[in-house]
Amino acid sequence: MTKFGENWEHGFRDLVAQAGTKAIMDAGISGDKISAGFVGTMASGKLIGQEHIGALLADYMGLNPIPITRVEGACASGSLALRQGFMAVASGMHDIVVVGGVEKMTDLGVNAVSDILGGAGDQEWELFLGATFPGIYALMARKHMEQYGTTEEMLASASVKNHKNGVKNKYAQFQREITIDDVMKSKVVASPLKVLDCSPITDGAAAVVLAATEVAESFTKKPVHIAGSGQASDSIALHSRELVTGLKATQVASKKAYERAAVGPKDIDVVEVHDCFSIAEIMAIEDLGFFEKGQGGPASMEGKTALDGEIPVNTSGGLKACGHPVGATGIKQAVEICWQLRGEAEGRQVKDASIGMTHNVGGSGATAVVHVLKKS
Amino acid sequence: MTKFGENWEHGFRDLVAQAGTKAIMDAGISGDKISAGFVGTMASGKLIGQEHIGALLADYMGLNPIPITRVEGACASGSLALRQGFMAVASGMHDIVVVGGVEKMTDLGVNAVSDILGGAGDQEWELFLGATFPGIYALMARKHMEQYGTTEEMLASASVKNHKNGVKNKYAQFQREITIDDVMKSKVVASPLKVLDCSPITDGAAAVVLAATEVAESFTKKPVHIAGSGQASDSIALHSRELVTGLKATQVASKKAYERAAVGPKDIDVVEVHDCFSIAEIMAIEDLGFFEKGQGGPASMEGKTALDGEIPVNTSGGLKACGHPVGATGIKQAVEICWQLRGEAEGRQVKDASIGMTHNVGGSGATAVVHVLKKS
Repeated sequence: MTKFGENWEHGFRDLVAQAGTKAIMDAGISGDKISAGFVGTMASGKLIGQEHIGALLADYMGLNPIPITRVEGACASGSLALRQGFMAVASGMHDIVVVGGVEKMTDLGVNAVSDILGGAGDQEWELFLGATFPGIYALMARKHMEQYGTTEEMLASASVKNHKNGVKNKYAQFQREITIDDVMKSKVVASPLKVLDCSPITDGAAAVVLAATEVAESFTKKPVHIAGSGQASDSIALHSRELVTGLKATQVASKKAYERAAVGPKDIDVVEVHDCFSIAEIMAIEDLGFFEKGQGGPASMEGKTALDGEIPVNTSGGLKACGHPVGATGIKQAVEICWQLRGEAEGRQVKDASIGMTHNVGGSGATAVVHVLKKS
Repeated sequence: MTKFGENWEHGFRDLVAQAGTKAIMDAGISGDKISAGFVGTMASGKLIGQEHIGALLADYMGLNPIPITRVEGACASGSLALRQGFMAVASGMHDIVVVGGVEKMTDLGVNAVSDILGGAGDQEWELFLGATFPGIYALMARKHMEQYGTTEEMLASASVKNHKNGVKNKYAQFQREITIDDVMKSKVVASPLKVLDCSPITDGAAAVVLAATEVAESFTKKPVHIAGSGQASDSIALHSRELVTGLKATQVASKKAYERAAVGPKDIDVVEVHDCFSIAEIMAIEDLGFFEKGQGGPASMEGKTALDGEIPVNTSGGLKACGHPVGATGIKQAVEICWQLRGEAEGRQVKDASIGMTHNVGGSGATAVVHVLKKS
């Protein structure tokens, strides 16, 4: 992956080329072994005026004429690309594929970017009428607080923990610790969410190489297996959902991923969850089965999701501190879990991690994608 | 598929719901049998302010919580969705999937839409500097004319033939015949291409249901097999290409599709090619191997691609007369070939058609996707 942050010196193409080259070198293969690619990016059309990203990247990575296909599912675009790559290998159509995610977001002003991100929600029934993403998550937070007694401090504790992890990750956008008091005193974006409850706008790219198991073993001594993949949809507008104190799509997708991998929440040693807002992390750790519904807030407050806790969550720093270049996030999660399972996560290494999970959400939860990864 | 045209009475969501419902009814299945979906759309973010199209459509088609994934490869987005659906079934991950394509283009003015379509080319090196899509294809046409003696009348003959076919297709945007003289006298867009050499701006959607062979046979007596699928990339900017009198991506993709299907150009009974401009059809019938390089123009002029010719091309009316709702085109091509192989193409039926082909191009040729379909 590239360094995440305000990357004004590198364009969209450069970011992907950087991440792709690193992935290919790490895999110990040459580019001519790759027979297809998939790339996740949410809004390149609006952010940089460029669609047709698959072909663009085949060109800039020197991989022509292999097919590269762009997939989009808002903030879950990266994990969707991972899943397509997984299917391409599983189908027998390709032996080795490269999968990337990228977003170049800081070339426009923050209001323009917010409007563009709004395209992940229901344009006709939410955004057009004035809803914003922080606003939609704020509604979920309010309901969670009312129903389960979750407090603003509990929400803040997720951001505090993620910043603490981010300090140990050289690729993270923010590498400074914050306190609950800092979060509580930061500017309100959509009450109860304050600016330090929100993930930032970020440039970045990440890439991984996927191969059939027997092929992977011929290249690397440390392959990581995709043991389960789950994807689910829910109503795009919040007002149509059955559940607003959690994401049903996360519940359905994780159930599938757990079943396919033949594991349960207690088997997961480390997880990257989609904390676009602090409330999203609290809901995710409940929806994924790590804690009972309503217990996510206290668990976070009590340090159960810290690096040395029961279930280390977002060791990379998460979307909050590592940054959230939308299309890249799902792949970054996979990169972080790979490093953890290989014992290469440096100062943030989870001891003896052998099974990990990634959880990536599109918009306010209309898409969720969950992968279970296992050490070989 | 929906009627293609200026569809001001139906929004983006309605178009997909219409096409999807028709496909499901035609397949004789109920929605609850479908376990995943893929949808191709190029520029919904810029055209209607909406990304996250997969989840939106799962919602509007009442298919939650199944996963639906959007793929994008400019004007080849539809065929990319078809290919992902094919891999999802081939991988064993899903038994029955729905695949759609859609674009709602007429809500904006023609200049805005032209700029948006420019996102399929190289934004930094072509469009930003003033190139347009008709301009890029005009360069290819000029070179083809210089190198092979192709004439403007030969180019025009492709449009004339496609309009003739369109008259017989009730879903086509244009249902009127035109003459070579009409084309020659129409307004110049980018010399030598005139407005009647160009495909129109269109609203529309199309959908197909894919299933594992044994599953398909339990639902329908007329399944159509996907016998081969090929996808390839080329440089996104024309100035970086080896070949400008044809599309290398088409040549590579069709080679793969032919090999997988174990057939050659002579075995194809009917083909839908990507005629975004008349020159594109001339190049396509050469690149796909139906005619020698340089012989596409004379072949078209001599009626060899007509409904009763050697190889009937674009029986639907093609992009020129049936219309070109960008993301929908690749799926529309598959729908047309299905109808042909089932003997349901009414007044434009090709006699005894048993093997067909679809050819879908992204932008000026940086992506090409070719499928070979066979009657069961």
